[in-house]
Amino acid sequence: MGAGLVGSLLTLYLARRGHPVQVFERLADPRKQGLAGGRSINLALSDRGWKALAGVGVADDIRQVGIPMYRRVMHDGQSNLTFQPYGQDNQAIYSVNRGSLNCALLDLAEAAPNVRISFGQKLTRLDLPGRRLHLQDAATGEEHDVPYERLFGADGAFSAVRAALQRTDRTDYSQQYLEYGYKELTIAAGPDGSWQLEKNALHIWPRGNFLMIALPNLDGSFNATLFFPYEGDNSFAALRAPTDVATFFQATFPDAVPLMPQLTEEFFDHPTGSLVTIRCWPWVYHDTVLLLGDAAHAIVPFYGQGMNAGFEDCTVLNQLLAQHGEADWAHVMAEFARQRKPNTDAMADLALYNFVEMRDRVADPRFLLQKRIESKIAAQFPGQWVPLYSRVTFSPDTSYAEAWAAGQRQEAIMQRVMPLIETEADYESAAVQTLVRESL
Amino acid sequence: MGAGLVGSLLTLYLARRGHPVQVFERLADPRKQGLAGGRSINLALSDRGWKALAGVGVADDIRQVGIPMYRRVMHDGQSNLTFQPYGQDNQAIYSVNRGSLNCALLDLAEAAPNVRISFGQKLTRLDLPGRRLHLQDAATGEEHDVPYERLFGADGAFSAVRAALQRTDRTDYSQQYLEYGYKELTIAAGPDGSWQLEKNALHIWPRGNFLMIALPNLDGSFNATLFFPYEGDNSFAALRAPTDVATFFQATFPDAVPLMPQLTEEFFDHPTGSLVTIRCWPWVYHDTVLLLGDAAHAIVPFYGQGMNAGFEDCTVLNQLLAQHGEADWAHVMAEFARQRKPNTDAMADLALYNFVEMRDRVADPRFLLQKRIESKIAAQFPGQWVPLYSRVTFSPDTSYAEAWAAGQRQEAIMQRVMPLIETEADYESAAVQTLVRESL
Repeated sequence: MGAGLVGSLLTLYLARRGHPVQVFERLADPRKQGLAGGRSINLALSDRGWKALAGVGVADDIRQVGIPMYRRVMHDGQSNLTFQPYGQDNQAIYSVNRGSLNCALLDLAEAAPNVRISFGQKLTRLDLPGRRLHLQDAATGEEHDVPYERLFGADGAFSAVRAALQRTDRTDYSQQYLEYGYKELTIAAGPDGSWQLEKNALHIWPRGNFLMIALPNLDGSFNATLFFPYEGDNSFAALRAPTDVATFFQATFPDAVPLMPQLTEEFFDHPTGSLVTIRCWPWVYHDTVLLLGDAAHAIVPFYGQGMNAGFEDCTVLNQLLAQHGEADWAHVMAEFARQRKPNTDAMADLALYNFVEMRDRVADPRFLLQKRIESKIAAQFPGQWVPLYSRVTFSPDTSYAEAWAAGQRQEAIMQRVMPLIETEADYESAAVQTLVRESL
Repeated sequence: MGAGLVGSLLTLYLARRGHPVQVFERLADPRKQGLAGGRSINLALSDRGWKALAGVGVADDIRQVGIPMYRRVMHDGQSNLTFQPYGQDNQAIYSVNRGSLNCALLDLAEAAPNVRISFGQKLTRLDLPGRRLHLQDAATGEEHDVPYERLFGADGAFSAVRAALQRTDRTDYSQQYLEYGYKELTIAAGPDGSWQLEKNALHIWPRGNFLMIALPNLDGSFNATLFFPYEGDNSFAALRAPTDVATFFQATFPDAVPLMPQLTEEFFDHPTGSLVTIRCWPWVYHDTVLLLGDAAHAIVPFYGQGMNAGFEDCTVLNQLLAQHGEADWAHVMAEFARQRKPNTDAMADLALYNFVEMRDRVADPRFLLQKRIESKIAAQFPGQWVPLYSRVTFSPDTSYAEAWAAGQRQEAIMQRVMPLIETEADYESAAVQTLVRESL
């Protein structure tokens, strides 16, 4: 159930293992309506996502339409820029258009043998003991009834498959919203199709309790997203008229405003999105139903890991099938859930943590100094010290839970190191060197 | 919506303020089927509950059918007993039968002017903007449609009113189950209707990772409840046949088994209940809908505070109405939710915490010694040191959140005091006296 990013990649994996796959998707085929119907949001594809795409041999195809982003560029209120590399050397995260990526994966999945994808199919009822889907066709309104052997719920944060699992006894569930919404806006391409901000970067306008970000598109434009409180002094509730928006943006994002000619129209035409973290348990019903992707673990977008975590689900399920075969699905499904749950829980925490980092800490010179000191430690003790961001983003063989635990250990060390440091040069002092060596 | 304990008490409060009240209850009238239809569970009524009952002048009526319990009696595996008083002097919690209490409150509510209670009315759909309930009559199957001015959702842990609120945007929600279920069992009355265990006590059989408790009834019997893991070595899953149950109980609860002649029948006839904590937010829809009781904050039963917390909701709402009047319901509802949420969240944590205390810590001589030392501190510094249990149970003017915070401060002090203590007499030592004085 679900032909989004995770559903179509999972279909490819299952088809490669020789399974016939029937995919049902509630929405219409995004390839038939251009990209306008899909969400125009950009995603940051990183190493866990690449690993999953490489597992079915499609990473190179996708890389053609991605734009590498090597660093964060921070824009302050006086239009000054500061910079923070994401990793070492050529390490980058990739800006990809969600709609294009989904369409590419759908084309690949549909070309695989024994795959059928049906769009406009809403799951109205799920008979778990009887293994039957009750679907309603969006075009005709007719209901039909489909038996299944195994059902994979990859139907997103508001999963209908999960809703059916929740109606069984003793299912843990939580949905927690941030008191922030988001608004997608456009930074225009230059007249010649050029990028009007540094192309190969993720741009951040950190403003304490809110922020704007922008990711590059292939056509020279950037997709900007304002993450902003629903209520309060600076909030969606406070910006009621076009002049409120223009005044606020001019004062707050002075370097961006000249590049956003449609700002006020977009601000009121585009919906305000909400930001939710969803946790649930179990992910499995006997040996017949398994939840994956956002259906099992929707997170906020601030670490750029939502899609990557869903893609990693496919990698892990494929590994378990390679190891145990298809003879004992109950074991494979239970083991998948057991392995993944602590990791996706850790990723949910990391994503919430990074919201504070992106909107606030990256504007603090002391924070940026700390990051430079950490780079020095990483260079001096390769393998022993890996920055948290690199563990999450560039270390696909380290689990999210291990990354988070190691990151917390390192942060505790930095809490002792930083009081000894005024400038980068202080890193060479005997006191700091001794403390770092003894802490590792 | 809901004519359970909180719904009927709230009705009394609203009627006393002159409001016409129409109550709809999904289940049948418990007074028309004897008590068999209702749950036979006993509840521990304590000071917050008494305060709420006194607020509508019905505390004395109810006290007639309650049995005071002055202490915990712990039964170990060799049938030895130890004792822990709940409070000072005559402080007690009261064992009351849920069904009897509910029937008494329904009689009182129905006798109030302008109150109508309709049973067998299932809420099938709630039109929040249109202020209309869609109800289905259990007897006839017919649906009807009722407009409302204000709606109070007192319809329990699986509230239909809350489910409708959850379908609006940005509602936080969580349900967390324990990996334990409960089974209600009976300790029989003696042949002459006498109590075969100490009458005025709550009995506990703490067994490390599980426990049984028993509360007295007026007829000489006790209602016992086994709280037990669903899975594992000692678990519901492991006890499959009557002989398994008999063998396990004989080995584990040797002093109780002779008093439980219907043990094996009841064990398999009675359903296994699950234990859930439910949190949600918001509790309010504009100025028209408010959640109270378990619908807003269902908790596990281990502090005996579920009903008391729901009754305290009625006290707080009534105070706010007394203070602000009915002119601005939006403010009263918002203020109610704002005041209550941190307190019911604290109570949810306390209830989970007390599960560990009841099943495990009360069997530890060091824990009981610590409680005796705390009593000495409380006696020496009256007002400055109040045991956590007393703050929660016997201090209805202290909020749950304040009780929990003070309890944690005191526990931190005890963590420093107890290493200095081997016997009760050590409390008098200079070191302990100094430490306690300086900590307070």
